[in-house]
Amino acid sequence: MECKIGVCQFKPELMQIEKNLAKMESLLESASADLIVLPELAASGYLFNSEEEVQNIAEDPNDGPTATLFKRLAKQHNTSYVIGFAEKAENGIYNSSMLVNPDNSIHIYSKIHLFFEEKKWFKVGDTGFKIFNAKNGVKVGMMICFDWIFPESARSLALAGAQIIAHPTNLVLPWCQQAMLTRSLENGVFAITSNRIGKEKNGNNVLNFTGMSQIVDTKGQIIHRMDKNEESVFVTEIDPLESEDKDITEFNNLFLDRRKELYRS
Amino acid sequence: MECKIGVCQFKPELMQIEKNLAKMESLLESASADLIVLPELAASGYLFNSEEEVQNIAEDPNDGPTATLFKRLAKQHNTSYVIGFAEKAENGIYNSSMLVNPDNSIHIYSKIHLFFEEKKWFKVGDTGFKIFNAKNGVKVGMMICFDWIFPESARSLALAGAQIIAHPTNLVLPWCQQAMLTRSLENGVFAITSNRIGKEKNGNNVLNFTGMSQIVDTKGQIIHRMDKNEESVFVTEIDPLESEDKDITEFNNLFLDRRKELYRS
Repeated sequence: MECKIGVCQFKPELMQIEKNLAKMESLLESASADLIVLPELAASGYLFNSEEEVQNIAEDPNDGPTATLFKRLAKQHNTSYVIGFAEKAENGIYNSSMLVNPDNSIHIYSKIHLFFEEKKWFKVGDTGFKIFNAKNGVKVGMMICFDWIFPESARSLALAGAQIIAHPTNLVLPWCQQAMLTRSLENGVFAITSNRIGKEKNGNNVLNFTGMSQIVDTKGQIIHRMDKNEESVFVTEIDPLESEDKDITEFNNLFLDRRKELYRS
Repeated sequence: MECKIGVCQFKPELMQIEKNLAKMESLLESASADLIVLPELAASGYLFNSEEEVQNIAEDPNDGPTATLFKRLAKQHNTSYVIGFAEKAENGIYNSSMLVNPDNSIHIYSKIHLFFEEKKWFKVGDTGFKIFNAKNGVKVGMMICFDWIFPESARSLALAGAQIIAHPTNLVLPWCQQAMLTRSLENGVFAITSNRIGKEKNGNNVLNFTGMSQIVDTKGQIIHRMDKNEESVFVTEIDPLESEDKDITEFNNLFLDRRKELYRS
């Protein structure tokens, strides 16, 4: 089963939703893929200054500007997309990602492990780590940015049956890209980490986003890693079914060798 | 609280217990440390050919040749040691490690995740992931070699209160040393990985051990990594209490941010 998966890296501008969406549409114009992952909070930017700002950029998950554009693109390009956005829900605002499919279906993950000042703006996600079908039934699990440092995130998605982990990020710490090789290897899954680039300032706060978006195979090998500054889309062809093989040697299986009864949680 | 921790790397010879123990004694002669970690199956070598061979090199955990030597060395050098050995127990043979303290106490961990043909020779460990006091009350958790690929191993030890993970290995796969940086970082613990070097042949089976023994700090930074061929002991001074601080930013804590109720296991 062949599947073309891709990652998109670019520089959003804070609070410029229409401009950022137009840039993504333009970047994605010539990308032919079955699944493409875009960054966390891709349309809004990241370094908010007030609750009011966050209220202003929060979007309805079904017919906000991000959902509207990506439903159109999904149909137009026959592609599934995963993109991060600020989700306006009844009980508050979440740092979420949506999987948007060519059949018009939308699935939501709300970020469980909020990073730094996100705790001021967002509610802790309550969707759990679920698996959703992307185009052609490819099984996608979503996690967002800082979820990476908790091994339980990728483990939960793999145990739930993820073939591909879709991982929108706005990374500023230096460790994630390398750690994701271990996440892929220990779980036998593909991982697509989409990071943004650029700098955001807010008063004395300055964040430098580290780029280096990447696609990693089920053995923890980098298929492609972008540099720290490029704005681009990269697409590669993989077989998602490779993730069904959890054997690491002829005697060892990543899942069957687990000894749950001896683990602490 | 200052604590001198060390790692010993060398080339054991298969089935040559006395010779290997003599070599370790000689390597450790001038090493001044509070805790030193040695490789997995350090006295026996690794690539056994028959159950009879394994029976022959299996040792009593309290007064076998390894325990006898290291109890003497622990007293003589005022040092705690962690060393891997084949443990002769009532119900079978385990791939185990012992923590031997200057006060003559010995604590055992039996390997839970057996690698490759180890499954033919050893019983699956049943001690679980426990924490033991080394010299000066430093809290040590043991895991052995292939345990590294299961994030639950280091996680269990960290949750149980490990300040330092002592990790005897006989590594042949290429991934572990780098993955241990993630293990240290995600758990906020020190990790001492002691690997052997050299090659072992047994019929058509050939194993090349990868050396690169290392000590990693609580932020996933390599304090020291040996090369692929050296036989030596490296000692460094650390503060084990750094592992008590699980904050990763002023808003984030590696343990308190965990959302157990949303994880699969």
